[in-house]
Amino acid sequence: MNLRFDILATSGPARRGRLFTAHGTVETPAFMPVGTRGAVKGMTAQELEAAGASVMLANLYHLTLRPGIDVIERLGGIHRFTGWRGPILTDSGGYQVFSLARLRRLDPDGVTFRSHLDGSLVRFTPESVVEAQRRLGVDFAMTLDECPPWPISEADAETSLELTTRWAELARRAWIEDGPGALFGIVQGSGYRDLRRRAVASLRALDFPAYAIGGVSVGEGTEMRRAVVEWTAPELPADKPRYLMGLGTPLDLLHAVSHGVDLFDCVLPARNARHGVLFTRRGVLRIKNARFRDDPRPVDERCSCPLCTRQSRALLHHLIRAGELTGPVLATIHNVRYYLDFMADLRECVELGTLTDFAQELTDCYADGGSPATPLAAPPRRPRAAR
Amino acid sequence: MNLRFDILATSGPARRGRLFTAHGTVETPAFMPVGTRGAVKGMTAQELEAAGASVMLANLYHLTLRPGIDVIERLGGIHRFTGWRGPILTDSGGYQVFSLARLRRLDPDGVTFRSHLDGSLVRFTPESVVEAQRRLGVDFAMTLDECPPWPISEADAETSLELTTRWAELARRAWIEDGPGALFGIVQGSGYRDLRRRAVASLRALDFPAYAIGGVSVGEGTEMRRAVVEWTAPELPADKPRYLMGLGTPLDLLHAVSHGVDLFDCVLPARNARHGVLFTRRGVLRIKNARFRDDPRPVDERCSCPLCTRQSRALLHHLIRAGELTGPVLATIHNVRYYLDFMADLRECVELGTLTDFAQELTDCYADGGSPATPLAAPPRRPRAAR
Repeated sequence: MNLRFDILATSGPARRGRLFTAHGTVETPAFMPVGTRGAVKGMTAQELEAAGASVMLANLYHLTLRPGIDVIERLGGIHRFTGWRGPILTDSGGYQVFSLARLRRLDPDGVTFRSHLDGSLVRFTPESVVEAQRRLGVDFAMTLDECPPWPISEADAETSLELTTRWAELARRAWIEDGPGALFGIVQGSGYRDLRRRAVASLRALDFPAYAIGGVSVGEGTEMRRAVVEWTAPELPADKPRYLMGLGTPLDLLHAVSHGVDLFDCVLPARNARHGVLFTRRGVLRIKNARFRDDPRPVDERCSCPLCTRQSRALLHHLIRAGELTGPVLATIHNVRYYLDFMADLRECVELGTLTDFAQELTDCYADGGSPATPLAAPPRRPRAAR
Repeated sequence: MNLRFDILATSGPARRGRLFTAHGTVETPAFMPVGTRGAVKGMTAQELEAAGASVMLANLYHLTLRPGIDVIERLGGIHRFTGWRGPILTDSGGYQVFSLARLRRLDPDGVTFRSHLDGSLVRFTPESVVEAQRRLGVDFAMTLDECPPWPISEADAETSLELTTRWAELARRAWIEDGPGALFGIVQGSGYRDLRRRAVASLRALDFPAYAIGGVSVGEGTEMRRAVVEWTAPELPADKPRYLMGLGTPLDLLHAVSHGVDLFDCVLPARNARHGVLFTRRGVLRIKNARFRDDPRPVDERCSCPLCTRQSRALLHHLIRAGELTGPVLATIHNVRYYLDFMADLRECVELGTLTDFAQELTDCYADGGSPATPLAAPPRRPRAAR
């Protein structure tokens, strides 16, 4: 439970930090690419390293159903199994139990559900989820929580939060203090400020080594999503890492960093890549668009990924339109690299106190949360000339 | 048309050579990974280089239909377009015209067909196919040919060969002598020895800088396929490169090398990889098989690919069974690497005169042309202890 987190610099509420784990350090704010079943879709572990990732995410729900915790444990744990040598965070799978599993039955002690793969009966309890993550040998473990959808009444959100709070207590008690990994408490409370505040207070009383903001990006819209971050982040202990789960666009990340969030994960860069939507320093490219058929320029001329250093927009347009497997592969490598470079820019902005300027420039090119249809705007200036 | 080909060593009919092109040298016997539409399915150009490839194949039929020769030429040629910096060979697309296109009409001067993509009318002539490959800037160009299926009567095969021979003459005349690339003449003649002999004689009279053996692996079975190689290869000029088109299993390659073939291409390593069929130095692994679920060993412990150096059979089993994109990607990188390493072993065997021993060892572990269902046999000994 000894999670060392050094804050190296601040700029208003924003923090530039460093997290220490048994598998290496993490410079924060950090983006954690999502390797749900043990690999980022389309990327090798070596490519993920080369892109600059320091932490990888995986998902306990998916790994429990296939190949099973026993198998991974026998194979030497999740690092040996995945071949990813840096820190690994597993999501507890609460979100997937509620979005994917069938016939789930909640009770105060846990949840029983049928696997979406083969219909077999599975039970998750706060204690079993903690135990499974310990057996995997993860660096960052998450408590089991209930992640309610939006909209939801305040009364129902309160009932849900009470369950999540009880589960957090059970998980905290089950977690062995002197193990190598750190357990994150997850703040729920939906779109209700008072519930979020109560959630933070309950978790703080349990003294977790790190905290996550959960239950966002479940249908509530940008304004409320940002409000939840603005309400919650400042209430969390200043000396502990803060992780915003499942977000988001570059603008979402910049907003959350500005309000003191340190860790992020999101499937967006990889999923968008597979659909031919590329993130660049000049905004989003929808590479299937006919105007890229003849475009000899790299996707992003300031990107150092394997695609941008060697190939053109025209090639990627061609490969993705032709349904060639290498198209999504190259696009994913690029988008993940973009996100990781973007976080490096944010870290620099925190150090230099230039987050506000960067936010304005980013807003100019990422209109509408990362999906401008208009010709590309001027590039945002980099925080400083050289990196 | 100046294709320099040095023969460095021989062992019976087998040759160890070196081909010189404007984009680098090729150590032969060489395997050329297939990047039909400009990329090997699932691999980046950098990964292909790291795997040890020296030549990449692409296909004129597919590139003509999409994105079009004009587009690639405007983008600076096929090397700039694909990002592959080594030599590139394009197949003329004759095979695809006869296997994929609709409503084709043959005439003495060429073939008119409808695109399998959009039904548009396209015409290929021996001259247009040569011209297109010149505009792409390929290092190795192929003449337009007709590739008849098996079985076929000798009379029909003869008629087909007459057309291919006429087209070869037209192509040879159209090829500009002093350009940077080399035009290969293609030996057809189906499974008839006399026709193969006549085909060789006609092509030799045209003095091509290199020769290909086409029309194999079209349904004729292993015995006849090998017979065609044994009849044809020794008839070709000893000082020119010989390319066996579209083959095959490791045993096919070893057989052909033993009979003096220098160049190969095949979709087998990449296609098998996507289906979870892995080539190894101990035979074939069908990685989806339940016995690999818990197997902590690398796919091939003597392989240096990204998968084998870091991950287990159990991980690949899991990723491919789960339908994860990274599964086919890792398997493809491995299989292509296996083929390229295998060719390096063959080159060494030619130098050392140990092809026969290697053939016996390979036969022991690759029963039935690369698809043993039985437990893995003993590994073939390497040609020498260290590489």
